[in-house]
Amino acid sequence: MELFKEYPFIKEIPVFWGDMDSFRHVNNVVYFRWFEIARIAYFENLKAFRPLPDINVGPILVKTSAKYLKAISYPDTVSVGVKSVFYSEEKIEQIYAIMSHRKNVICTEGNATIFGYNYKAMKRAPIPQDVLKAIERIETQGDES
Amino acid sequence: MELFKEYPFIKEIPVFWGDMDSFRHVNNVVYFRWFEIARIAYFENLKAFRPLPDINVGPILVKTSAKYLKAISYPDTVSVGVKSVFYSEEKIEQIYAIMSHRKNVICTEGNATIFGYNYKAMKRAPIPQDVLKAIERIETQGDES
Amino acid sequence: MELFKEYPFIKEIPVFWGDMDSFRHVNNVVYFRWFEIARIAYFENLKAFRPLPDINVGPILVKTSAKYLKAISYPDTVSVGVKSVFYSEEKIEQIYAIMSHRKNVICTEGNATIFGYNYKAMKRAPIPQDVLKAIERIETQGDES
Amino acid sequence: MELFKEYPFIKEIPVFWGDMDSFRHVNNVVYFRWFEIARIAYFENLKAFRPLPDINVGPILVKTSAKYLKAISYPDTVSVGVKSVFYSEEKIEQIYAIMSHRKNVICTEGNATIFGYNYKAMKRAPIPQDVLKAIERIETQGDES
Repeated sequence: MELFKEYPFIKEIPVFWGDMDSFRHVNNVVYFRWFEIARIAYFENLKAFRPLPDINVGPILVKTSAKYLKAISYPDTVSVGVKSVFYSEEKIEQIYAIMSHRKNVICTEGNATIFGYNYKAMKRAPIPQDVLKAIERIETQGDES
Repeated sequence: MELFKEYPFIKEIPVFWGDMDSFRHVNNVVYFRWFEIARIAYFENLKAFRPLPDINVGPILVKTSAKYLKAISYPDTVSVGVKSVFYSEEKIEQIYAIMSHRKNVICTEGNATIFGYNYKAMKRAPIPQDVLKAIERIETQGDES
Repeated sequence: MELFKEYPFIKEIPVFWGDMDSFRHVNNVVYFRWFEIARIAYFENLKAFRPLPDINVGPILVKTSAKYLKAISYPDTVSVGVKSVFYSEEKIEQIYAIMSHRKNVICTEGNATIFGYNYKAMKRAPIPQDVLKAIERIETQGDES
Repeated sequence: MELFKEYPFIKEIPVFWGDMDSFRHVNNVVYFRWFEIARIAYFENLKAFRPLPDINVGPILVKTSAKYLKAISYPDTVSVGVKSVFYSEEKIEQIYAIMSHRKNVICTEGNATIFGYNYKAMKRAPIPQDVLKAIERIETQGDES
């Protein structure tokens, strides 16, 4: 998709009627759920860094934001583009864009900062090298899944 | 509360077991729900700017972010501090801080940019003068409700 | 699908990581969201009875229940079967079944009672004849959408 | 409260603006969240049966239902009454009633069936005797917490 040409990974998510609030637009909170869904799908796609409690080092969200450009309403489907614009042992910086299929336009932009976290020792940990290599691969060659 | 001395308005919210995700911490999305609850309470307290569909001009969220400093778990209660750091006809900029009662420390910081929106004409509108005056009052004299 | 042979309408819904609670199973509340999604899709499919506020008479939920047979976890996709087992001017009785694609088994059963409601007059209303005819069609001939 | 005279345990919960859906009523799914909040509070109050993953035997929900009598809207506060109408080693049957403070009337009734579950062995287990005794105490003498 032209709108997403800079995003190597895209996750499609259906909009549900219950995602809307009293203003009959998708509630501002739901966009962060969508970012989470797309972020987890991106990491699962790496096959290297999983948001599951039975692993040692996983991603932990330390900062996130959204900029609402246009409202989204049910019925619709959104595509969420994910791109890691910075990644090192210290942190991963991602940007997101949410496209409404109905409006065919980017309706929301967002970003997130992710640290590595050792869920057993319960403290921060470097992001593993195989995760960084997998990110490098997807960011330079695109999603081949 | 000392932690909140710069915040003129504070909203207390119970943490529910169901707010936690598989990591047994409050899910990142829930903090934006808490910001919304506190923001609406702040505006209602102004008695001038209500997030209701039957008014003409109401607030609309255009940008928001959260910085997660410490995890929060059930059982707990949080207090959310709200402060409007900038307000004009054009926009309101707010900052938020979430304090865990159990940890007695600020666990999350956030902010939001709010525009005025004419929900009947469905377009942006200046923030009404009475709203700006009410914000001025609460920000300079504190919440007397 | 053999499991759903008695259900004329099936709605597929992705399971999200955030649907799970601290027990690492989909939280009991989420199943009612899934019933709602499937119920709305069923009614939209009828092209006659829409859960939208700009119509006169729409469906209103008066009773619902779920029976949890097996837990569902992320990652998974569910199919929700919907069948109207009774329908008259007075009410519609539906049954639901949720199948986990991963487990290939019915994990949850549910039902709902729906009245007609005049959202302008804000009182109960008979279920319109064209809705009943559309239900009759889908229940006897299956979903042709 | 007169309305709750048969309920030995009552949990107060604030209604949030975001609990409402496009119909500007609290969404049907939220009531099950409220039942869960009240059910967990009831069990915690027993100091004997906790919905936490680090214990052996805890409660597991196997069936639940709601009957919607009157709509609830923001702003409001609800009180949820909880009563165990049957309890044995095999199961606990509870009934719930949700009262709107604004309407001063029962708006929703519900019930739930709960089994004991060994979360380590991952199979059903008898409900412990100390839990049954604590239920007996609260159901016959009322909540003294």
